[in-house]
Amino acid sequence: MNSMTSDIGRLYLGIDGGGSKCRALLADAEGRTMASVTAGPANPFQDRAQALASIEAASLGALQQAGLGAADLARVVAGVGLAGVNIPSVFAAVNAWAHPFAELHLTTDIHIACLGAHRGEDGAVIVAGTGSVGYVCVNGRSHNYGAHGFPFGDKASGAWLGLEAIKAALLHLDQLGPATTLLASIENALDASGLELVSAMAGRSSRDYGALAPLVLSCAEAGDPVATAIIEEAAAYLNALARRLLSHGVSRFALLGGLGPKLAPWLAGDVQAALITAQGQPDEGALRFARSRHGTRVAALG
Amino acid sequence: MNSMTSDIGRLYLGIDGGGSKCRALLADAEGRTMASVTAGPANPFQDRAQALASIEAASLGALQQAGLGAADLARVVAGVGLAGVNIPSVFAAVNAWAHPFAELHLTTDIHIACLGAHRGEDGAVIVAGTGSVGYVCVNGRSHNYGAHGFPFGDKASGAWLGLEAIKAALLHLDQLGPATTLLASIENALDASGLELVSAMAGRSSRDYGALAPLVLSCAEAGDPVATAIIEEAAAYLNALARRLLSHGVSRFALLGGLGPKLAPWLAGDVQAALITAQGQPDEGALRFARSRHGTRVAALG
Repeated sequence: MNSMTSDIGRLYLGIDGGGSKCRALLADAEGRTMASVTAGPANPFQDRAQALASIEAASLGALQQAGLGAADLARVVAGVGLAGVNIPSVFAAVNAWAHPFAELHLTTDIHIACLGAHRGEDGAVIVAGTGSVGYVCVNGRSHNYGAHGFPFGDKASGAWLGLEAIKAALLHLDQLGPATTLLASIENALDASGLELVSAMAGRSSRDYGALAPLVLSCAEAGDPVATAIIEEAAAYLNALARRLLSHGVSRFALLGGLGPKLAPWLAGDVQAALITAQGQPDEGALRFARSRHGTRVAALG
Repeated sequence: MNSMTSDIGRLYLGIDGGGSKCRALLADAEGRTMASVTAGPANPFQDRAQALASIEAASLGALQQAGLGAADLARVVAGVGLAGVNIPSVFAAVNAWAHPFAELHLTTDIHIACLGAHRGEDGAVIVAGTGSVGYVCVNGRSHNYGAHGFPFGDKASGAWLGLEAIKAALLHLDQLGPATTLLASIENALDASGLELVSAMAGRSSRDYGALAPLVLSCAEAGDPVATAIIEEAAAYLNALARRLLSHGVSRFALLGGLGPKLAPWLAGDVQAALITAQGQPDEGALRFARSRHGTRVAALG
């Protein structure tokens, strides 16, 4: 029995892939962290070829950082958590990938975020980044909310905040909605004025809309009533989402994603009381997932 | 002086181009209608090459219906009203077209709709179709509202109604919003259930969203509170838009587009009181525009 078939030479890789980047965390059979790298976007719902390329790039980068090479991919048990695979057809397509690993165990980005945040214990997480999603895992059963994508889903996400801000700015421009400092802020950010905003944003991706989210927060923090109403609608959705997660019988949730810390102060008191700081990152959750599924049959989404 | 340079053999063509189709109305120098045809989509903001191809196809079709041929394009003074050319860069791009006509006079779709609806007199129009726009022309000056496009503009349009309906259906699906008959109606229309709605609508165009608008109206008419709230939000926007148009000093407006007749009963009393039936179609307005601009310098948008 050589190291290629025993667990002595086994490598564990946790992959956390989303719409803006892909993180890879490599550990040895004894659980020692060997490398941590970041590569490009890995949301197979948006672009499957790019997602698989980013996962492969992150994996090779991690091996290289650990002083290993492409041949060592065959020693790797990968736990891969990706945005977009909550859609069954997307999950099936990625699961059918002729991947270079010894094993690939696929799950959602939110599952690995929850495993990371609660160190594998029961709990819930909400992610508010470019997109938004809620997830709860209790007694081995999980439930997913949101994550339906731009432009109809992901309320309270960065993309949703940016889209609502553009809508409000254009209503102000037409004098068909209240005046808002969002108009000048967005004109300044996009280096476009008045109707030029339309061509500046036409056909843009959720990430481009999400890039406007900090403006909405700063306008709201400065007291703009229109921006405040947008943030309050986002907070109301997050309150409802958190209460729905907690109704499954867990007592705590973590609020993750780039917008999490910014939106937390806007949440209702009872929701803030259940909010905890994540105890670990999603890539650590992915690594935990790789270890726990090692040697098991590759599963369907469930 | 032959017929090619005198006005005796002159032909006038009115083109009404939008996101779903392009209509062409051909008349002779004496104003007699010679042909009327419909061709494919002609919104140069969505697809410029397709728009120019549709205009050319409609023009050739009209000549053919009148017993003429491609050589007669050189006798044609075209008045062309298009969706999308309210954006200055789109207007400039279409205006730079090496068109096959003797003259091409370009303006917005809403301008020709207003010229048609009010037979060239001062007045206002609102179009609620796949998109939405408001326009008023008074004493030779015009003002435009809306028409900013999907997904951030065109409130109260078919695309907007469809987008709001999908959002509401997904909130119901997650039990994060009120139950609504929109969910089952949309599932039925798209032959998709639950989360499959997400992949069914991902990346879809404004026309695909607009195709769901009749469902929203029928659910509202049947008393569904969520669909009713969407229609009422649309009506509130159209009320504000109509009042803004009337504030420019005209006393009447026409409500055009496929959704116009369906949304009219939802408008406020004072707004309904100013509503008139259009006295002519947009292609007639385009023909009127061709005649009035014949021999004038091709103008910039203004």
